[in-house]
Amino acid sequence: MSIIVLGTVALDTVKTPFGSKKHMLGGSAAHFSMSARLFAKVNLVAIIGEDFPPKYIEFLRKKGLILTSLIKEKGRTFKWQGEYRGDLNTALTLNTELGVLSAFRPCISKEQRKIKHIFLANVDPDIQRHLLSSMQSPQLVGLDSMNYWIHHKRQGLVRLLKKVDIYVANDQEARDLSGETNLIKAAKCLSSYGPKMVLIKKGEHGVIFYTDKFIIAIPAYPTDKVIDPTGAGDTFAGGFMGYLTKARKINSETLKQAIAFGTIAASFNVEGFGLERTSRLSLSELERRLSRFRELVVF
Amino acid sequence: MSIIVLGTVALDTVKTPFGSKKHMLGGSAAHFSMSARLFAKVNLVAIIGEDFPPKYIEFLRKKGLILTSLIKEKGRTFKWQGEYRGDLNTALTLNTELGVLSAFRPCISKEQRKIKHIFLANVDPDIQRHLLSSMQSPQLVGLDSMNYWIHHKRQGLVRLLKKVDIYVANDQEARDLSGETNLIKAAKCLSSYGPKMVLIKKGEHGVIFYTDKFIIAIPAYPTDKVIDPTGAGDTFAGGFMGYLTKARKINSETLKQAIAFGTIAASFNVEGFGLERTSRLSLSELERRLSRFRELVVF
Repeated sequence: MSIIVLGTVALDTVKTPFGSKKHMLGGSAAHFSMSARLFAKVNLVAIIGEDFPPKYIEFLRKKGLILTSLIKEKGRTFKWQGEYRGDLNTALTLNTELGVLSAFRPCISKEQRKIKHIFLANVDPDIQRHLLSSMQSPQLVGLDSMNYWIHHKRQGLVRLLKKVDIYVANDQEARDLSGETNLIKAAKCLSSYGPKMVLIKKGEHGVIFYTDKFIIAIPAYPTDKVIDPTGAGDTFAGGFMGYLTKARKINSETLKQAIAFGTIAASFNVEGFGLERTSRLSLSELERRLSRFRELVVF
Repeated sequence: MSIIVLGTVALDTVKTPFGSKKHMLGGSAAHFSMSARLFAKVNLVAIIGEDFPPKYIEFLRKKGLILTSLIKEKGRTFKWQGEYRGDLNTALTLNTELGVLSAFRPCISKEQRKIKHIFLANVDPDIQRHLLSSMQSPQLVGLDSMNYWIHHKRQGLVRLLKKVDIYVANDQEARDLSGETNLIKAAKCLSSYGPKMVLIKKGEHGVIFYTDKFIIAIPAYPTDKVIDPTGAGDTFAGGFMGYLTKARKINSETLKQAIAFGTIAASFNVEGFGLERTSRLSLSELERRLSRFRELVVF
């Protein structure tokens, strides 16, 4: 089964209490792909600039990703610079350079238009809408966004949510977009905008998943090995959407499994800088930790 | 099986977005007892003043609690006044009147000294130590504290922890006492002070339980019905310790069950002001919601 993910491929400069790295391969689509690839054929839709290191393209190709819609344009690659302090729960953005991202219009092949599982990772809602409108027969559409778009393109985002099956947000985004402080109320409100399913990521506190039929709550994998949390949410989404793509059906059981796989994928992501850990992750490793996780949380 | 709980019996004045109540029956030992009574014979050790309404004593007696060590002294009952805003996660203390609590020296009967399960709910560590030293053969000792004692009687608290099996703390207390931001690291550090088991309560985010052999993580019961969270932590502890007292053995399975029962007891507590909801809670109600909870979190 195939999944198509739209998002960013970026050069990340990150500082955490455990060190700093300059211009690592990063971005929402790259992190998503690194876990989704364990379950499905991943078609990556993103833009890079002329300064993008060819070794990174080679790296993505070797991971089995379909890169025909990873387009290179004149200009500079999207760059993000951030720092984590204290409990590493919140990133402090020091600098953002949009570069080629500011004029990105995704363009995919005729074959890719037929893909039924779609994830719109965090980019401008206009770009997300543009890609979604070119898909022929979407079956499962997930969307992630961020506070910047909630505050600057709220209307466009809310309009887009009507066409989305699963809205993936972190707790602060869910509260900001809904205006509700209680997360269950927030999820209910967000679901009324269109998505039948709302998944709220709470970082070290795990996930709440809401539909009007049932709610799922899964804690995070308890770990004290947090080196760099950048991309943990996207890695979660990749494991979650990847598993659902492979499972081919949506019910409370497959959803719980998908959330658990996403949770474990994210727990590997935070153990290294950027894609360090997830790029060498295997499905059997993921399954081994999942079974340990099950012992910790299943009563 | 019997359990003895030392703590406060208070008159609480609480304001939440859903209303306000004056001089309700409250306090750490009262909330603890209301859930522990569903599993074990609860011996309540606390002090009240001359202004304590006789109807509240009658109320506690009718709930099946042993009140021989609920002593009345000259002076006024301990009073707490607080307010919750926004997501109701944090209480804003508006006023505290210690009253008779400031000169409290617990005094228990010869029979009570033989009780093997002991919970030292939040009071001055000196009072907690005093009670513990009068117990003949403690088998399972749990202790809860609060930030005030962590900052004002740190040494006494840390000394007391050596004699404790389970230290129950909320996330902020765990971070403050350990100096660690990551909660797993915090739990490890706190365990090194003495308690083999450390249970960290994260409010709406559930619980992390640490021993050097395994870690348990259980989410909170997802609910949007939060009227008044006062005493939720104590209600959790009551369900948790009560279950372990009834189970008579400690292993990863009984601990997970105990945490789940505590979680569900707390989810009832927040649905009403003070003891409103938990005072009319039955074990079968608790079990019914636990089985719904299982469906939401077990994958």
